[in-house]
Amino acid sequence: MELEEIYQLVEEDLAKVRRQIDSVTEVDSPHLAEMLRHVLGGGKGIRPALTLLAGKFYRYNLDLLLSMATGVELMHTATLVHDDAIDKSSVRRGRSTVNEVWGEERAVLLGDYVFARAGEFAADTGNLRVIILFSQTLQTITSGEIVQTNDAFKLEQTRGHYLERIASKTASLFSLSTISGAILSDAPEDSVKILKDYGFNLGVAFQIVDDILDFVGTEEEMGKPIGSDLLQGTLTLPAMLLLEQYPDDNPVKELFANPNMSEKDKREKIGRAIELVGRSPIAKQCYQLALDYCDKACQNLEKLPAKPSRQALMDLADLVISRKK
Amino acid sequence: MELEEIYQLVEEDLAKVRRQIDSVTEVDSPHLAEMLRHVLGGGKGIRPALTLLAGKFYRYNLDLLLSMATGVELMHTATLVHDDAIDKSSVRRGRSTVNEVWGEERAVLLGDYVFARAGEFAADTGNLRVIILFSQTLQTITSGEIVQTNDAFKLEQTRGHYLERIASKTASLFSLSTISGAILSDAPEDSVKILKDYGFNLGVAFQIVDDILDFVGTEEEMGKPIGSDLLQGTLTLPAMLLLEQYPDDNPVKELFANPNMSEKDKREKIGRAIELVGRSPIAKQCYQLALDYCDKACQNLEKLPAKPSRQALMDLADLVISRKK
Repeated sequence: MELEEIYQLVEEDLAKVRRQIDSVTEVDSPHLAEMLRHVLGGGKGIRPALTLLAGKFYRYNLDLLLSMATGVELMHTATLVHDDAIDKSSVRRGRSTVNEVWGEERAVLLGDYVFARAGEFAADTGNLRVIILFSQTLQTITSGEIVQTNDAFKLEQTRGHYLERIASKTASLFSLSTISGAILSDAPEDSVKILKDYGFNLGVAFQIVDDILDFVGTEEEMGKPIGSDLLQGTLTLPAMLLLEQYPDDNPVKELFANPNMSEKDKREKIGRAIELVGRSPIAKQCYQLALDYCDKACQNLEKLPAKPSRQALMDLADLVISRKK
Repeated sequence: MELEEIYQLVEEDLAKVRRQIDSVTEVDSPHLAEMLRHVLGGGKGIRPALTLLAGKFYRYNLDLLLSMATGVELMHTATLVHDDAIDKSSVRRGRSTVNEVWGEERAVLLGDYVFARAGEFAADTGNLRVIILFSQTLQTITSGEIVQTNDAFKLEQTRGHYLERIASKTASLFSLSTISGAILSDAPEDSVKILKDYGFNLGVAFQIVDDILDFVGTEEEMGKPIGSDLLQGTLTLPAMLLLEQYPDDNPVKELFANPNMSEKDKREKIGRAIELVGRSPIAKQCYQLALDYCDKACQNLEKLPAKPSRQALMDLADLVISRKK
């Protein structure tokens, strides 16, 4: 099952979302337009697809779903622009980051602009519950990122810390994507809850897989350098297992103990960590946890009406595990 | 007339706004709470006062006005946090900036958090027109700042450029503050327009005075270093007049021609520019333009109902001119 097949169900709608996102680049300032063209589009579009799929179980107004789908994708893009500025990352989605091309200052301002535009699309739904959830989700994401910044290069972190962090920074937006679709289509409250939980658990699984792929993926497929979490001092699940299973002569321990080591030394440690994960059962163990979250995500879906989007959500959960990028 | 006297009319309400702002610091993460306590409060509160005053001409629900007043003040605070991070400023409102204490990365994230919280307060009004204006205003402010970044250290700028820039970065939020009060109190459309225009023109005047005070004020009163606009390469009205009236041996021209000169040389140029403005009629000429905008702001106020807040808005316009901080 490929992403494209699952997306078939919402293919036309996603094309409309893309057109709405393209329309964001139509601004007076040529410079702002250029930066917007640089960052908009190019994502997998999983979040807007979730809103569209979750919104098709009950009576929906497509325009409202499209507005919200556009809003969640733009919010995601804005967080990436700021993340890259903060991390001083130079490559994203296979191209240079805004901070790399135009400097961190513009990246901050551009991210702010895209947040505001995202907020306007959310407001265009006219649904206050959704609008308030939108603002709250951005608070959750940001406070999660602040915690992540605080935890950087710290070795004493539990799985609980890790799961809390990825719940905030990733699962919250997945959850917003699905709950908003449910709310906008007048789903009964128990269905709203099922779709919200689906989004949340899928988001946790998605981020665990992302963190695995940062060890076992390729830069070509991921569109960004491998090992970037370790470079930022972010202790993800594979790195935690590495610390537990290789207590001696551990490259993560060495790296985190000395965050100011030379770039070359860092790269050497990260290379060793990647190699160790590659020849250990760690990736498999992490995948098992991601699978558990996917199962949790899907366990209540059968209570929803038997619409085509139900199968698509189940397939999407499989795909979150099997994806290579 | 002191700010305190004008504020008397809304004193109790402003105290409630301050309490709402204080409540924003009540978050789970102690680190986030600490940063929030550091940046929240301490402003002049002119924007929330505008919302409250503009909202008292017709039938209003105080809770909605309070939410919006809190929202505009938080939006203002968030823009300051990001501005300081972008400009690498170290002092604001008489204390260290977030970027100075916790680094630029946290400042970006904290600003995002405060934006989101501001958006939630705006959403709490339940008024879609106000909510959409809120998002649009943030777009206007941000795109104005992007233009300002582009124009940095450029000598060829017209008064038109300058006025457009300050309209975006300052007057737009003043205008949001008043129009939202008007909308939330069910003002008839012609009154909405009068209050919106009042806010806009007052905002332009306010920023012109701000730009004058960056030359003739004191760091003690302003709570931030004098000459910071020139340091950032921002060509404000006083600097424009300085260029026109002192074409030879002009410190602004020298500074802008060589933005990479040493900090010491920059300070020397800025010192000379401040001195020149001090002994020229430039400040007076700039004040005349600010006065014109204040007159424009007030010219239609008499068409509003003769409520106490009408006189307060007029007095506020005087104060925007006479303020020293």
